[in-house]
Amino acid sequence: MARASNLPVDPARIGDVIDGLAGLTEPGRPYTRRAFTAQFPAGRDFLRDRFQAAGLETRIDAAGNLVARRPGRKPGLGTIMLGSHSDTVPDGGRYDGIAGVAVALEVARALSDQGIELDHDLEVVDFLAEEVSIFGVSCIGSRGMAGVLPQEWLTRESGGLTLEQGIRDAGGDPARIAAEARKDIAAFLELHIEQGPVLETEKRDIGVVTAIAGITRIEIVVEGRADHAGTTPMGNRADALAAAARLVTGIEALAKSFSEGAGHFTATVGEFSIEPNAANVVPSRARLLIDARAEERTTMDVFAASVEQLAEQTARETGTVIAPPRRISDNMPTPGDALLLDVLDAACETAGASHRRMASGAGHDTAFMAKVTRAAMIFVPCLGGRSHAPEEFAETDDIALGAAVLLSAVIQLDGKLQKVIQEGA
Amino acid sequence: MARASNLPVDPARIGDVIDGLAGLTEPGRPYTRRAFTAQFPAGRDFLRDRFQAAGLETRIDAAGNLVARRPGRKPGLGTIMLGSHSDTVPDGGRYDGIAGVAVALEVARALSDQGIELDHDLEVVDFLAEEVSIFGVSCIGSRGMAGVLPQEWLTRESGGLTLEQGIRDAGGDPARIAAEARKDIAAFLELHIEQGPVLETEKRDIGVVTAIAGITRIEIVVEGRADHAGTTPMGNRADALAAAARLVTGIEALAKSFSEGAGHFTATVGEFSIEPNAANVVPSRARLLIDARAEERTTMDVFAASVEQLAEQTARETGTVIAPPRRISDNMPTPGDALLLDVLDAACETAGASHRRMASGAGHDTAFMAKVTRAAMIFVPCLGGRSHAPEEFAETDDIALGAAVLLSAVIQLDGKLQKVIQEGA
Repeated sequence: MARASNLPVDPARIGDVIDGLAGLTEPGRPYTRRAFTAQFPAGRDFLRDRFQAAGLETRIDAAGNLVARRPGRKPGLGTIMLGSHSDTVPDGGRYDGIAGVAVALEVARALSDQGIELDHDLEVVDFLAEEVSIFGVSCIGSRGMAGVLPQEWLTRESGGLTLEQGIRDAGGDPARIAAEARKDIAAFLELHIEQGPVLETEKRDIGVVTAIAGITRIEIVVEGRADHAGTTPMGNRADALAAAARLVTGIEALAKSFSEGAGHFTATVGEFSIEPNAANVVPSRARLLIDARAEERTTMDVFAASVEQLAEQTARETGTVIAPPRRISDNMPTPGDALLLDVLDAACETAGASHRRMASGAGHDTAFMAKVTRAAMIFVPCLGGRSHAPEEFAETDDIALGAAVLLSAVIQLDGKLQKVIQEGA
Repeated sequence: MARASNLPVDPARIGDVIDGLAGLTEPGRPYTRRAFTAQFPAGRDFLRDRFQAAGLETRIDAAGNLVARRPGRKPGLGTIMLGSHSDTVPDGGRYDGIAGVAVALEVARALSDQGIELDHDLEVVDFLAEEVSIFGVSCIGSRGMAGVLPQEWLTRESGGLTLEQGIRDAGGDPARIAAEARKDIAAFLELHIEQGPVLETEKRDIGVVTAIAGITRIEIVVEGRADHAGTTPMGNRADALAAAARLVTGIEALAKSFSEGAGHFTATVGEFSIEPNAANVVPSRARLLIDARAEERTTMDVFAASVEQLAEQTARETGTVIAPPRRISDNMPTPGDALLLDVLDAACETAGASHRRMASGAGHDTAFMAKVTRAAMIFVPCLGGRSHAPEEFAETDDIALGAAVLLSAVIQLDGKLQKVIQEGA
């Protein structure tokens, strides 16, 4: 796609950071650098060296985030923050999170190269443990920075380690997380690979992310009756699998229909199991878990109501018992900040990047940063939409074009944010 | 249902055998007396005592079956054999197999009570290990008696025990199984609980079993593509679970349709699993196993062909890859012997039992005995069709009426079988 001629950023430096981190992995296992494991500090040391070499002041905040600072000309204006995360899932990718950290650093370097001083402080952040960590929870660092890390999570254990100790080992100070929740950030921007096929398919350079979809998980349990598979006539059964299969088909049809409406929508049955799961026994129980994601909350509510109706109808038609579907988790969508979205659109034009607005179906640190500041994201294309796998791939030049967009956005914001404050005052 | 007034058999003695065996179970676990476990010999000792008290000569044959003999008046005519099995599944029932052994003994006792001497030898058998045993295979004793126990099964191991040693521990002589395959049996009859709801629903006393259904197991594997559940648009997926759900629904519809045709037919998806089975990943793989049972082999063949078409169509419509369904086991149906079925119908009339012809959807020792002699079965009703569970239940009076039917059938056969031989000669 985009070729990196005359970009105001250096693709080679971005590639150097991505390649450097790629080499710091579990022995014999590509691109595995989970937070709270032995590999993670090596990645942090690498990033700290690069940040300091770029002239940035580094520190670890209370929540264990690595923060690098480039002071602005007007102390007190607040901070423009850029960043993402350097941890991976097991066998995870080279670009998920990492690309966002690399371009954040590149923006700081490009500003210095071009002798541009900002009025705002600029900070580059590597959030701690964005991926689902060994403690079974995600976005530790961004939740902490936003002051919304649940206190009770600190006692979670994995292999004899508590999350509290894990944050301390990363250089954080769990006792001070709440007190140090950031209130001084004027704007937060994150670049991320799309993790989906839309930009690649449409041959666009940049996705300006209108919202991070809300994620609702709905559990359905079907109770049938275990009967002998050979002796029980077909008309005399309460087959939990047959009923659950209708649910899966119905949920897929609903999801397709809702995805054609306004805003991003997906619904997936990702977990599915039956009991007793024996060849010669009619299944007595089935459990399925729906992962539904909606840009618009009203869409999610209508979907959930439709699933309830589907469950009632299926129970009636199959002679099974289906309890009302249960929302086991339920997160609201996070709209991107309107001012930032306009600035990002304009920055795409400035950088010569073709772009479209689109929602994010995946969760990101930006969703938590949005609780304490204006926040928005951009996506860059990735190969076949693959992520969380060794074959995850994005072109360095595409990422560099994203860096150019962020650079332009930061320069615009440095002025615009002051104007907004003045107008608001 | 049937009340036991004026029956030529003694319900109390049948109840005594069933209750006696029910008490010989794994401590704290109702009705668990698996072959090759510590509980099994206690059941055998109990039966041997009862057989001997009835004046029968007992022995263990080469395959480990407990055989009790009542000599006939005309040596060389051959043996009329009655029986079933005393082993259970884990947490299995009080009646499955056991009722058949108890009534076989009761027929021998009733003949003696009434001073009836038969021309044929009469044998009562307790087959070894009819249920799927700790070695993962079933019908050890009846396969052995018929000379069709696969030699390679003898080296199967479970908990340090081989099947060969297990048979030896039961009193058998594995090296002599082939040589002692029975060729002298003139007829074999087995009574069993129905393990289905048909007789109870129709309020009939006896099912005269036209055939033991053939059992075919068909495995289908669906290959889709693991995609991010939040970022992959609904129209851009190859969801293995969504495809497999269509298969389950299609298989159920086929099964219902085939079950309305000629002869017993069932098809059940009893095993079903998906990968990676993670909430936020579109399922990449699904495996399902169909257990299909048909009284008529042609029905099974047409069903299997229909499943192949269904798999092709589903793959086409869902963008998944489905390999041709694979028959991982395939057993022919075993028709009941026509002469015996007529005798059993007549015996029902003599005993005053309402009856119908029906197929057995479950497998039984009779299927193997049919390889070496005329063989047939009768069913008695059981509560709600339940079996292989602690709540399995049949009325002793219903079982006693079945014993009366067998008694009448044996008396008729003692004459008829000689006539058939004479006519055939």
